[in-house]
Amino acid sequence: MTEARPIIPVILSGGAGTRLWPMSRPERPKQLLALTAEETMLQLTAKRCGGERFTAPIVVANAFHADEIEQQLAAIEGSVRALVLEPMGRNTAPAIALAAIAAGGGHDPLLVMPSDHVITDVAAFHAAIHAALPLVDEGWLVTFGITPDAPETGYGYIRIGEEIASGVHKVDRFIEKPPREAAEAMLAEGGHAWNGGIFLFRADMYLGALAAHAPDMLVAAQEAMAKARREGVRIWPDEEAFARSPADSIDYAVMEKATRVAVVPVSMGWNDVGSWDALHAISALDDGGNHHHGEVIAVDTKNCFVRSDGVRIALVGVEDLIVVASGDDVLILPRGRSQEIRKIIEALKR
Amino acid sequence: MTEARPIIPVILSGGAGTRLWPMSRPERPKQLLALTAEETMLQLTAKRCGGERFTAPIVVANAFHADEIEQQLAAIEGSVRALVLEPMGRNTAPAIALAAIAAGGGHDPLLVMPSDHVITDVAAFHAAIHAALPLVDEGWLVTFGITPDAPETGYGYIRIGEEIASGVHKVDRFIEKPPREAAEAMLAEGGHAWNGGIFLFRADMYLGALAAHAPDMLVAAQEAMAKARREGVRIWPDEEAFARSPADSIDYAVMEKATRVAVVPVSMGWNDVGSWDALHAISALDDGGNHHHGEVIAVDTKNCFVRSDGVRIALVGVEDLIVVASGDDVLILPRGRSQEIRKIIEALKR
Repeated sequence: MTEARPIIPVILSGGAGTRLWPMSRPERPKQLLALTAEETMLQLTAKRCGGERFTAPIVVANAFHADEIEQQLAAIEGSVRALVLEPMGRNTAPAIALAAIAAGGGHDPLLVMPSDHVITDVAAFHAAIHAALPLVDEGWLVTFGITPDAPETGYGYIRIGEEIASGVHKVDRFIEKPPREAAEAMLAEGGHAWNGGIFLFRADMYLGALAAHAPDMLVAAQEAMAKARREGVRIWPDEEAFARSPADSIDYAVMEKATRVAVVPVSMGWNDVGSWDALHAISALDDGGNHHHGEVIAVDTKNCFVRSDGVRIALVGVEDLIVVASGDDVLILPRGRSQEIRKIIEALKR
Repeated sequence: MTEARPIIPVILSGGAGTRLWPMSRPERPKQLLALTAEETMLQLTAKRCGGERFTAPIVVANAFHADEIEQQLAAIEGSVRALVLEPMGRNTAPAIALAAIAAGGGHDPLLVMPSDHVITDVAAFHAAIHAALPLVDEGWLVTFGITPDAPETGYGYIRIGEEIASGVHKVDRFIEKPPREAAEAMLAEGGHAWNGGIFLFRADMYLGALAAHAPDMLVAAQEAMAKARREGVRIWPDEEAFARSPADSIDYAVMEKATRVAVVPVSMGWNDVGSWDALHAISALDDGGNHHHGEVIAVDTKNCFVRSDGVRIALVGVEDLIVVASGDDVLILPRGRSQEIRKIIEALKR
């Protein structure tokens, strides 16, 4: 590693956020909500890469959220290096391409992060970044592998290969969201990590990998940025050009195909807050195992997660219930079944 | 029985209605809500005593509800003989005294009914009234005894005595709300009925019983009516005079003390709708045992009672739950525990 170059954080704010309905809605998705702390998840993400090692972040987001994002970052005294406002969602690989081009496409390392995850042990995260940097400088694409503590079926897994530097391993292979038995087997066997969707690589190396494995995507992103409208830090990529990009995730389009791909296994209190159950699991609980937030009157409740930003919720004698009220909607479901929220979303669409 | 005199219905609209919170509230108690049909419970009560046998009813109510009561009765093309607007609640015995005086205090029979009960078999109700009339003419105070079908602990019971006319029995004794075992024993033994709070007696005989057993109450009611303000059908009894009346129920003040007290046992689909569980029990259910009313999206729900007049309620995978949303409040409790709503009301007061 030569003279340390500053790392450019790239925060992806693309999620539509149906999994935490009714709080999370297209006009105000999860990352813009304060679900785990006083700050919103976007603010927590930005604060996680403050300090002199990092530049101001590049944020890639839905144009509809531009004002809100700038306000939220201003509120924590953070600035934005560039705010790339996607004309439509095309999944993560094209979004990161826009960011890599906005970053100048040079040697500088990009730290790519979703905007709506929790990391409680920031020191461990920074140590993992530090461990990865020498290989990143050498051109490796690095992903962070979350040490699993349960046989989760909602995440992709990474099989960890040989160690190629202190704390850094080759990726043996990526494994799609597994069935329960496979997840249990991987947990028992060890040597696997969750794919947390956090990446570190040089901008030029990412664009090079796109050139090799997804050239249509690269061309579309380049043209969209060449024709972009710019105003202060805001960049509006050209809609027609960007629409020609295939929609694909960075995992499928790049990481699973590239050759020099490494993983840094890390245990850092990571949680993707992908469901109300997940949020319950990381929330402060009272003696009865309840987490109540907002106007809640609870009598004899046990292991309940109750949250309201509007109506008053009164409960007596219920157990293991998730209740979320927001705007004109109230969601009620049993603990452990919050993935089934999609059934509600489908019913709402009909 | 001589030439049949018309019966004067007396509808008592005094309930504060906390048991069906949050739909029922002091400003809009149960009797003014449409809970069991398109019509409100007050409207159903008034319609139950339409026809040439009955005069227009005397309604005794809280002054705050005067406009709403007149509008509701006008909407079913019913008129009011008198609308007695109590300056404060003093329980049923004084309320009925006001009505008996408003009725003229003569020989005409009064049919006293709570405004918030359900009777599905109106023909059986009318037949019971018909059976009672000869004894009423002779001066008896008659109560209707509901044939019990479960060991309810929330009602008073009547021990049925000897038959003194076809279908009419002496009251052996009144029994206060019993413990579970006593209720089960009475159900097993037979010969007992629930005290449904519906009465038939001559106005003069009721006032005479008050003179004998609760003279302070009678004097207070007479003075309150003598000094009453009147405007059309509306009567405002004098507040200072009425305040001097003891507060007591007709059961304690009169029925349990008078000597010529009869009961007509009747099975007429009666329900006092005294809790959300009670309403669930008499509501139309879907195949899953659910009753949903208002904006409700339910997926995989079973035996749930869900009712909203405001926010949208979305449920997945819940069973045996009562959910009621009204105004800015949502109540959630398990089936079978709706009596515990009082714990919420207490918590709200604190």
